[in-house]
Amino acid sequence: MLESLKEQVLKANLQLEKYRLVTFTWGNVSGIDRENELVVIKPSGVKYSDLKAEDLVVLNMDGEIVEGDLKPSSDTPTHLYLYRQFQSIGGIVHTHSPWATSWAQSGKDIPSLGTTHADYYHGDIPCTREMNPEEIRGQYELNTGKVIAETFRHLDPLAMPGVLVNNHGPFCWGKDALAAVHNAVVLEEVAKMAYRSLMLNPSLEPIKSALQDKHYFRKHGADAYYGQ
Amino acid sequence: MLESLKEQVLKANLQLEKYRLVTFTWGNVSGIDRENELVVIKPSGVKYSDLKAEDLVVLNMDGEIVEGDLKPSSDTPTHLYLYRQFQSIGGIVHTHSPWATSWAQSGKDIPSLGTTHADYYHGDIPCTREMNPEEIRGQYELNTGKVIAETFRHLDPLAMPGVLVNNHGPFCWGKDALAAVHNAVVLEEVAKMAYRSLMLNPSLEPIKSALQDKHYFRKHGADAYYGQ
Amino acid sequence: MLESLKEQVLKANLQLEKYRLVTFTWGNVSGIDRENELVVIKPSGVKYSDLKAEDLVVLNMDGEIVEGDLKPSSDTPTHLYLYRQFQSIGGIVHTHSPWATSWAQSGKDIPSLGTTHADYYHGDIPCTREMNPEEIRGQYELNTGKVIAETFRHLDPLAMPGVLVNNHGPFCWGKDALAAVHNAVVLEEVAKMAYRSLMLNPSLEPIKSALQDKHYFRKHGADAYYGQ
Amino acid sequence: MLESLKEQVLKANLQLEKYRLVTFTWGNVSGIDRENELVVIKPSGVKYSDLKAEDLVVLNMDGEIVEGDLKPSSDTPTHLYLYRQFQSIGGIVHTHSPWATSWAQSGKDIPSLGTTHADYYHGDIPCTREMNPEEIRGQYELNTGKVIAETFRHLDPLAMPGVLVNNHGPFCWGKDALAAVHNAVVLEEVAKMAYRSLMLNPSLEPIKSALQDKHYFRKHGADAYYGQ
Repeated sequence: MLESLKEQVLKANLQLEKYRLVTFTWGNVSGIDRENELVVIKPSGVKYSDLKAEDLVVLNMDGEIVEGDLKPSSDTPTHLYLYRQFQSIGGIVHTHSPWATSWAQSGKDIPSLGTTHADYYHGDIPCTREMNPEEIRGQYELNTGKVIAETFRHLDPLAMPGVLVNNHGPFCWGKDALAAVHNAVVLEEVAKMAYRSLMLNPSLEPIKSALQDKHYFRKHGADAYYGQ
Repeated sequence: MLESLKEQVLKANLQLEKYRLVTFTWGNVSGIDRENELVVIKPSGVKYSDLKAEDLVVLNMDGEIVEGDLKPSSDTPTHLYLYRQFQSIGGIVHTHSPWATSWAQSGKDIPSLGTTHADYYHGDIPCTREMNPEEIRGQYELNTGKVIAETFRHLDPLAMPGVLVNNHGPFCWGKDALAAVHNAVVLEEVAKMAYRSLMLNPSLEPIKSALQDKHYFRKHGADAYYGQ
Repeated sequence: MLESLKEQVLKANLQLEKYRLVTFTWGNVSGIDRENELVVIKPSGVKYSDLKAEDLVVLNMDGEIVEGDLKPSSDTPTHLYLYRQFQSIGGIVHTHSPWATSWAQSGKDIPSLGTTHADYYHGDIPCTREMNPEEIRGQYELNTGKVIAETFRHLDPLAMPGVLVNNHGPFCWGKDALAAVHNAVVLEEVAKMAYRSLMLNPSLEPIKSALQDKHYFRKHGADAYYGQ
Repeated sequence: MLESLKEQVLKANLQLEKYRLVTFTWGNVSGIDRENELVVIKPSGVKYSDLKAEDLVVLNMDGEIVEGDLKPSSDTPTHLYLYRQFQSIGGIVHTHSPWATSWAQSGKDIPSLGTTHADYYHGDIPCTREMNPEEIRGQYELNTGKVIAETFRHLDPLAMPGVLVNNHGPFCWGKDALAAVHNAVVLEEVAKMAYRSLMLNPSLEPIKSALQDKHYFRKHGADAYYGQ
């Protein structure tokens, strides 16, 4: 079932190594079939080089395994919660990519310091608040999704396709699994450059909203004119 | 038409990945035929691995497409404006290469801190002033060219073959498209080393003009003695 | 003798280059057969590309060569001392991997700043005290082992599978030689990210113990639920 | 003539790209035949991928070309001066490797912060004083050699096999051309790690002389016990 979704989710997972976003098995991608309300996700702890489409796990929105012999990613409850909260998204990726994770560990938002950032992320990329011990000791992965959703109360997930989970690392998403990974690559580049710009000039402020709008809407929406 | 120019512009575009100056399609190279006043430029949003000479777009100096089925780079008005203002140059490249972009985001010129810099860039590499909301909301890409030209009022584009566009990233140029990319590689190296030198010694000043002249004219002009 | 242990120790040594933990021959891995009290270790100064299983040196716990034509690693007395003190470990690796060594040279512990760290190292990764001139001029490599053991008086080596030797570099270990190298790769990633997080936010404190416990025990112990 | 020396100098030049010490043609290696007082050096501005043994230039100690159709490296007078002053060395390499060059541009010595440094460089790696305008405008490359020799008045070139030329970049040397390149690789690693250690702990002091001696003499001299 869901063969073409599985192929895309497999391809997206394999891109994690190609784009150097992962060490060992530290990353997972999922995709959703909105019509059938089924999610396809990487199995937990399996090497990318060993991963095949039939290893992917299919779950319903309650987290029950519908198909697959392996255990799904331990981050599955976070993915499912985000799919429920963010109805516009079709794919999610979580990694410990080093630049984004360094920011997540710092507890700081990544300010929008240039057009590379503005081309994809419309505003500062937020870092969630720290989770409290009860949230950590309880349904931790579900609560991770909740703290992300809380951070996005006033944000549009497609105009801000990623987040830094405090003390942890990034989650990114997009219209499908491949778009999610694309946004994760962008986040890593943007995180690297923001770090260096701030080291050169610690008093930097985010760029003007006019420039943020110009670049974001050059690539997105009805008046986009980038690409073919 | 312009087959040999197209071959060079294609080769120069493909070097962007080889020299790790680009992520995804974040860079474009053009070349000009001064005699016929025609510019060859990369199409917008096309992957380098898919790019062929016949995909390149040929434009006249008014920006009208003379040959080609694809839309030219969205940065085309910047390229055309620079070709009109800087009559000595034959090729232009724009990227979001990470070290140069980090400097561009910082809003600071790259000071000439060593002979690597002085071998190619005769003086500090300037960062343009920020554009104002009217310039951004108007003919943005054309205005990007204008703010570069404003920065170069008292500079010789061949002795200073690149610029940092504030909040954005680098543009480089040279006698042809390959020379432009060569200068973009140098800029990235120079930007990286200047960052680190300043972190080690924040009070550094640019090197003596005698040393800047020595190295620049060792490689350029009538008395050059580097190379064969 | 010990063919399968030798194969594993060989494989673990060859992973040092694959994971970019070494320059030249700056790293060595050993493994122990606890039943026979024999240690297999890399010979000193031999290139990884030249290394074969039969080049590995077999020693007893007194450091006497039981098999092998080559001299063992000059760090052998450190390995042997650690095997005697840490009865739970089965493999040890020493490298000069650049991020971990930069921390070792700084004399500072690596604080637990995120879940990547907490997944493998249960607490801050300690840096040993500096050795005094007598310890250095005496049985230096043995004394290196002693200062590590001193640092671990109140630590469980399997829950803290690595250390920074002050002014020197990291030693890591694990249940066998491959696990030791795995932990060395993690250490390098964790060291890199902690550096960058602290540059972004110098006043960072280690993450909550609840989060450290959650992640460590998600991957280790009876209630682990990561992986298949 | 000098076929085996040429083969070694060729191999050493080709290692510059392998070890990522050079961009474009920014580096050159030479070797000397002390008996015949002849130096073999890379030709100026030739790509490493195009370089063949017969392209190398043979010079006498007065800088006269004895064999070869190409112009020697523009840095040749520096090499020749160093061979005259440092009778114990057999090979020299100059690069603009990024970490060492960042230090050279900072004007600071690289302090001996760890055993990686101490294994090869016995003490802080010195940065020369800045050259004055007369030295720069005069016989610049010869004067570069003189300012290096001035820095080494009280240093043994084999125990300190490299230097940072202020505002410029590193020169390294050794008993032959391959040893020189080996030391250049070490310098780059040491420069990188010293930078990071100082960022983590700006008040760091060099390691104890006992530790410097221990590691240097573990690898060098009559009592060395590293390697086979």
